[in-house]
Amino acid sequence: MKTITVVGLGLIGASIAAALKGFEDYQRIGVDIDKDTRRYAEENEICDIVTDDTLYAVSRGDVIICCLHPKDTLKFLRKYCDDFLPGTLVTDVCGVKTAVMQAAECIGGEVDFIGTHPMAGKEKGGIENSTGHLFKGAHYLVTPRKESKSENIELLRRLSVHMGCRDMIITTPEEHDAIIAYTSQLMHVVAVSICDDPFMFECLGFEGGSFRDCTRVAALDPQLWAELFGVNASTLAGTIGRLEKNLKSYREVLEAGDMNKLKKKLTSSSDRKRTMNIEHRRGDDVQLPEQ
Amino acid sequence: MKTITVVGLGLIGASIAAALKGFEDYQRIGVDIDKDTRRYAEENEICDIVTDDTLYAVSRGDVIICCLHPKDTLKFLRKYCDDFLPGTLVTDVCGVKTAVMQAAECIGGEVDFIGTHPMAGKEKGGIENSTGHLFKGAHYLVTPRKESKSENIELLRRLSVHMGCRDMIITTPEEHDAIIAYTSQLMHVVAVSICDDPFMFECLGFEGGSFRDCTRVAALDPQLWAELFGVNASTLAGTIGRLEKNLKSYREVLEAGDMNKLKKKLTSSSDRKRTMNIEHRRGDDVQLPEQ
Repeated sequence: MKTITVVGLGLIGASIAAALKGFEDYQRIGVDIDKDTRRYAEENEICDIVTDDTLYAVSRGDVIICCLHPKDTLKFLRKYCDDFLPGTLVTDVCGVKTAVMQAAECIGGEVDFIGTHPMAGKEKGGIENSTGHLFKGAHYLVTPRKESKSENIELLRRLSVHMGCRDMIITTPEEHDAIIAYTSQLMHVVAVSICDDPFMFECLGFEGGSFRDCTRVAALDPQLWAELFGVNASTLAGTIGRLEKNLKSYREVLEAGDMNKLKKKLTSSSDRKRTMNIEHRRGDDVQLPEQ
Repeated sequence: MKTITVVGLGLIGASIAAALKGFEDYQRIGVDIDKDTRRYAEENEICDIVTDDTLYAVSRGDVIICCLHPKDTLKFLRKYCDDFLPGTLVTDVCGVKTAVMQAAECIGGEVDFIGTHPMAGKEKGGIENSTGHLFKGAHYLVTPRKESKSENIELLRRLSVHMGCRDMIITTPEEHDAIIAYTSQLMHVVAVSICDDPFMFECLGFEGGSFRDCTRVAALDPQLWAELFGVNASTLAGTIGRLEKNLKSYREVLEAGDMNKLKKKLTSSSDRKRTMNIEHRRGDDVQLPEQ
């Protein structure tokens, strides 16, 4: 029997552990420093073994999935990089990859490290919100090293299938972080920035569907998102800058009262969105070019 | 028997006409210049009488609801202002109110004008997308004149109840337009501006829930929204400017790498959103101060 060690039984870790029940001939060890979390994991049979002994769990794992917040993931990799056994596959689940892949450079020898980002989540964290169905239909993004073993990439693919993911997409850390800065982090920056408007509370009761949809993710976990933004800061700042420029362009057309240009701009932008919608419907099997 | 005349049988006009079936002792006349629209209205019994003769319909109406796009609404009011019979209540359904109330100043004497904005819609316009259920649960915003008759405001209240609206809220045109600039128009400007990012198509397949929610309304009708933005241009430009400032503030914190300040900002913004969510759940009966 082989062992998958899940480090950190929060929303993502506990959901992964639950989703991996019955995966091939692996048993699941879950590690968490929080007593209540461990009790919940035991009572709900989230893992086969629950422990607070990270070193024990790390030294037992054939596959180690670090499911900590970004900063703690970086710390974990640096702290335990010499404790993984030869042949181990180590991986993480962070929403940013460049910083993680850099921190993982201390892991070497016979130990393989492959970054992953299962694109799923909830607004509320914690093991009590976990579910083995969390990854149903989600993209499973993977950033291998150049020297990563193809058998380990293949193992992750089987693992993602067992978790119910829609597809596994192999990409580079830099491309991953640029995409995530735009498709996810920027949406969160927009949402909180809209909520910073001093006029907001006067509009209470007038939030139509577009306002609710656009600001939904603003009720975020400040610690987690500060870390995610922080380790992707320059890419995200550039992405915000591009949006500022596009907003300014609309503002200036309005200030100039140039209605022809306004209509032209709206035609062009809305055409882009319609094209995106069409491509999206087509694109169930769209993949990024592999490394 | 009294008559409600609905001018323009697009999505909103046809939905209102359908929703007003059986309203007190009123018959419904629908006017449209498009032959196919009239045929659809007849075949689907959207109104009791369908005509292309605006002057006939206008001179028969005890209540006239102008359901044209913003520019055509302004034109309609100016063109027919002398043709309404004494005692008539004239109203419109535009998403902007200051420009409409100004255009309606030519209507006087024994004719009352009250602006309305039933806060409902669909991404696709046209009578074929209309439904008598469109206004179920919607806010019905009303901007009377100072001299508007209370019996007409009361008539609109009964009408909104019959249409299934959640509440009728009386406000001023200026307040209405400032609120709409923020809660609705800005969301559309943000959505199209995000879609203007040159990087978008490279991210195809990676749109998570937040991206889809935030850009959903970008597939808008350019003519309609250019008109809506155009008649509220300076208010909207100011609203965009405030968002630019808030985005810039996040960008600068990221560029400075000030993680403490970033977390503080995220805490403050997300607290505002959580407060808004709580107030929203409480606030089914929130109303703007009346004029």
